[in-house]
Amino acid sequence: MVISKEPVAVNDLIQRFPQLFIDSIGDLGVTFSEVAAPASATSHSAVFLATPKALAEGLLSKAKVIIIGKKSRDEAAAVRGDRTVLIASHVELAMATVINAFFLATPYTNRAQNGIHPTAVIGDRTEIAPGVRIGPNAFIGANVKISSGCYIGANAVIEDQTTIGENSVIHPLSFIGHSTRIGKRCEVHPQSVIGKEGFGYAHDEQFQHTRIPHQGCVVLEDDVHIGSCVTIDRATFGETRIQAGARLDNQIQIAHNCRIGRNSLLTSGFSVAGSTTIGANFVAGGRSVATGHVNVCDNVQIAALSGIAKDITEPGQYGGVPLVPVQQHIRIKAAMVQLPEMRKQLNRIIRKLGLDSE
Amino acid sequence: MVISKEPVAVNDLIQRFPQLFIDSIGDLGVTFSEVAAPASATSHSAVFLATPKALAEGLLSKAKVIIIGKKSRDEAAAVRGDRTVLIASHVELAMATVINAFFLATPYTNRAQNGIHPTAVIGDRTEIAPGVRIGPNAFIGANVKISSGCYIGANAVIEDQTTIGENSVIHPLSFIGHSTRIGKRCEVHPQSVIGKEGFGYAHDEQFQHTRIPHQGCVVLEDDVHIGSCVTIDRATFGETRIQAGARLDNQIQIAHNCRIGRNSLLTSGFSVAGSTTIGANFVAGGRSVATGHVNVCDNVQIAALSGIAKDITEPGQYGGVPLVPVQQHIRIKAAMVQLPEMRKQLNRIIRKLGLDSE
Amino acid sequence: MVISKEPVAVNDLIQRFPQLFIDSIGDLGVTFSEVAAPASATSHSAVFLATPKALAEGLLSKAKVIIIGKKSRDEAAAVRGDRTVLIASHVELAMATVINAFFLATPYTNRAQNGIHPTAVIGDRTEIAPGVRIGPNAFIGANVKISSGCYIGANAVIEDQTTIGENSVIHPLSFIGHSTRIGKRCEVHPQSVIGKEGFGYAHDEQFQHTRIPHQGCVVLEDDVHIGSCVTIDRATFGETRIQAGARLDNQIQIAHNCRIGRNSLLTSGFSVAGSTTIGANFVAGGRSVATGHVNVCDNVQIAALSGIAKDITEPGQYGGVPLVPVQQHIRIKAAMVQLPEMRKQLNRIIRKLGLDSE
Repeated sequence: MVISKEPVAVNDLIQRFPQLFIDSIGDLGVTFSEVAAPASATSHSAVFLATPKALAEGLLSKAKVIIIGKKSRDEAAAVRGDRTVLIASHVELAMATVINAFFLATPYTNRAQNGIHPTAVIGDRTEIAPGVRIGPNAFIGANVKISSGCYIGANAVIEDQTTIGENSVIHPLSFIGHSTRIGKRCEVHPQSVIGKEGFGYAHDEQFQHTRIPHQGCVVLEDDVHIGSCVTIDRATFGETRIQAGARLDNQIQIAHNCRIGRNSLLTSGFSVAGSTTIGANFVAGGRSVATGHVNVCDNVQIAALSGIAKDITEPGQYGGVPLVPVQQHIRIKAAMVQLPEMRKQLNRIIRKLGLDSE
Repeated sequence: MVISKEPVAVNDLIQRFPQLFIDSIGDLGVTFSEVAAPASATSHSAVFLATPKALAEGLLSKAKVIIIGKKSRDEAAAVRGDRTVLIASHVELAMATVINAFFLATPYTNRAQNGIHPTAVIGDRTEIAPGVRIGPNAFIGANVKISSGCYIGANAVIEDQTTIGENSVIHPLSFIGHSTRIGKRCEVHPQSVIGKEGFGYAHDEQFQHTRIPHQGCVVLEDDVHIGSCVTIDRATFGETRIQAGARLDNQIQIAHNCRIGRNSLLTSGFSVAGSTTIGANFVAGGRSVATGHVNVCDNVQIAALSGIAKDITEPGQYGGVPLVPVQQHIRIKAAMVQLPEMRKQLNRIIRKLGLDSE
Repeated sequence: MVISKEPVAVNDLIQRFPQLFIDSIGDLGVTFSEVAAPASATSHSAVFLATPKALAEGLLSKAKVIIIGKKSRDEAAAVRGDRTVLIASHVELAMATVINAFFLATPYTNRAQNGIHPTAVIGDRTEIAPGVRIGPNAFIGANVKISSGCYIGANAVIEDQTTIGENSVIHPLSFIGHSTRIGKRCEVHPQSVIGKEGFGYAHDEQFQHTRIPHQGCVVLEDDVHIGSCVTIDRATFGETRIQAGARLDNQIQIAHNCRIGRNSLLTSGFSVAGSTTIGANFVAGGRSVATGHVNVCDNVQIAALSGIAKDITEPGQYGGVPLVPVQQHIRIKAAMVQLPEMRKQLNRIIRKLGLDSE
């Protein structure tokens, strides 16, 4: 549950976000001071009910204000009692918007940190905009440029020649390698590694390995979020680039020279090998992978545990290893469970036809 | 090999742990000062032989004291010579108990650290019990509470409002996010991230993403161990909870709002999406996964590389993607290897029956 | 692109590395000052063209010096114009060698760091060779030995009794657990964990877990490179050992008591359970796994997403789960896509033969 010091007036809400709140039932003069899950809602709460399960729980809850989607209007009207019902164009977006606007700030940062902590170590010729907050024991290298509104957490390490745009948050214990370029409003969570050397070796006849130096960089465009324990390697030459608005969950691996398209959504465990280019609005299910040196067009979605092994040129939903259109993937999974039975039937047919003695 | 300064008397051992050491052969007046693997055992060693391979090696070793299971009694009696043989109810549990009681302490912590290192940075209104040890350059936020007997390693970061119960060990370079609640005798290994913001976004028509703030927390109940590079996200509302006695290996991902049951054992690479509830005594094989919003009952075990995609309501062993009972999983794997041959046979039958021209 | 202050003379190059540069076309008196990707090459550049795609681009580029393999000689000769062409025995090895010799140093380290930073904390009886560079806020425990030419990055933590051989680089925010032995010219990237306690528990009848202490260590032999977010656990007794020249990508898990053979190449996400021994020159495709207690002979390669579940005694290429020779693996994948169709055909045959009514 999140609690606001100042009560939020429903009337104000509708005026401020008219595209989000498109209809209502009941008294619009009320206020609320909490946003809660249905199970813990009180008479001071608003609840946002995006799923059928949440709707059922929320209509039985003590909440004073109920926010639902268009399709649930009649159901809510019938049982609302004296509660206020708001109809939202996008229930989750409405919830995110209201919490961000009226309740606790996100991303969370250490509120006690004002300015640069005296234990932080800053390199030569580094430019830090006024008001930037840098936590204890952070290390910032030389020739770094950090823009206004940024926050660098405790024990983070930022190597030489990196630039960070306005209002970005580098959480504690993050590592940003040299020459990385980070845009505005980006976020990097703890224990991630942005811009270390790529994994590339040349081999001799004895299969001994000589490192191929990676002197390129990593670019995070504006509004990129990076989870924890994510590794993004810098390019051999040129760039590894995460385009604007992409969101990466935890434990993701992006190898050298890849490009991840605008607004992509990569679920935990996604991994892509070197020099692959992925288009805009890509959605990767959990633990899915892509091989190196392939191109994926815009607007592709792949199921969890899937593997991209060659170019994808048609937008759509795919799944499986090997990757196929998602409907076929579902049929293959269903058939796989029947495999032992299929094998038995096949043997029966072979015996029946006398083919086993041929 | 581990070496004790004081020799351990076999008689004492039996008196102290009568439920572990249930029978013996030979002289109980002897002592030993080492616990070793069979290959490096000397005449001062005790060896604990839990597997047939270890038994074969151990009976040929130089060890003075041999600890075995009931089933190996006759074999050991025949070849023991003048060595002392102890029969244990659980050989591995006996070994773990003896090493923990008489040899090096575990978990390992920096022995030179007494009290709070002068380079550690501690926030306002934080309560640290007398005797708590905090390593160099650690950062502890405001309103944190750390109970007696705890150890916080070098360069660890603990954010505001976190509480840590008695005798817990937070290893160096760990990250504990704000408002986390950690129980007694817990352990968090280096580079893990407990309690960062969850991965949840609301989307508009242009597939632009607005973060859904995660203002809940993570709870680790008592006796929870967390490996390295583990990520556990805090809840949207409410809690992400790891119940008492659960043990998590390295590189595990637990998304927001999950619950992991008592005494669960999660092998390296296990990953679970948001809002899934898993019962007690769950055992996850390596790299297995569970999708979001499902419920798994108590006493379920899943094989390595398996994927839970819907509720499990019956205790038992399962495997595969899709997940099936483990015996069926084994048959499917066996059939899969025959697939190309099955395909050939099918084509032969089709030709034989003249079905290819239909 | 990498740029050298001093131009590199092609004649010098050939004299210095005669085994790499085995033939040439055109003027050998020229110099170059950049190594670039074909797309960004200028008239000061050398380009190394190892793939057909790079060759096509490079032959159209502005580069002054073109390095190619033997097979591309005729094609290059026909279109080179007045450019100098060098024929290399191994194009990628030649590139890696030239960049390492004439351009920016690799591995990258913080150039401003000379000697030991005053904020680093060093334990008792620790021996640090003259000239060793240690970054801000690093913590080195007691009885550690660090040899000449080493670099320890900012905020790294090295526990007691560890030894590090000459010219090794421990990047910022790395964790090296107690008693680890690291050879010469090794490299450990940020956020990796070398030598934490292994994941091993003994269980009682209530499935409560008692930790089996891991008092062994991790050994990295000479020339081992470790990526980021890699976890290598120390042995129960004895050693977990990574043999000379092995290279590990990001997000790899090596459990207690494993051995990884000489010159092995482990791609991102490889994971091996405890007590497995892997031979020399092993190549693991992305996200492949190996179970515990198995032996893999020298010269084995496994495809991405494969799983080793038993001993491999024959060198060669394997793939899949279950693991089979790679040619069979490819046939199985092809047949899997046909599974729904096979099922349909089978049902048709059963009806045709009247077997469905039996």
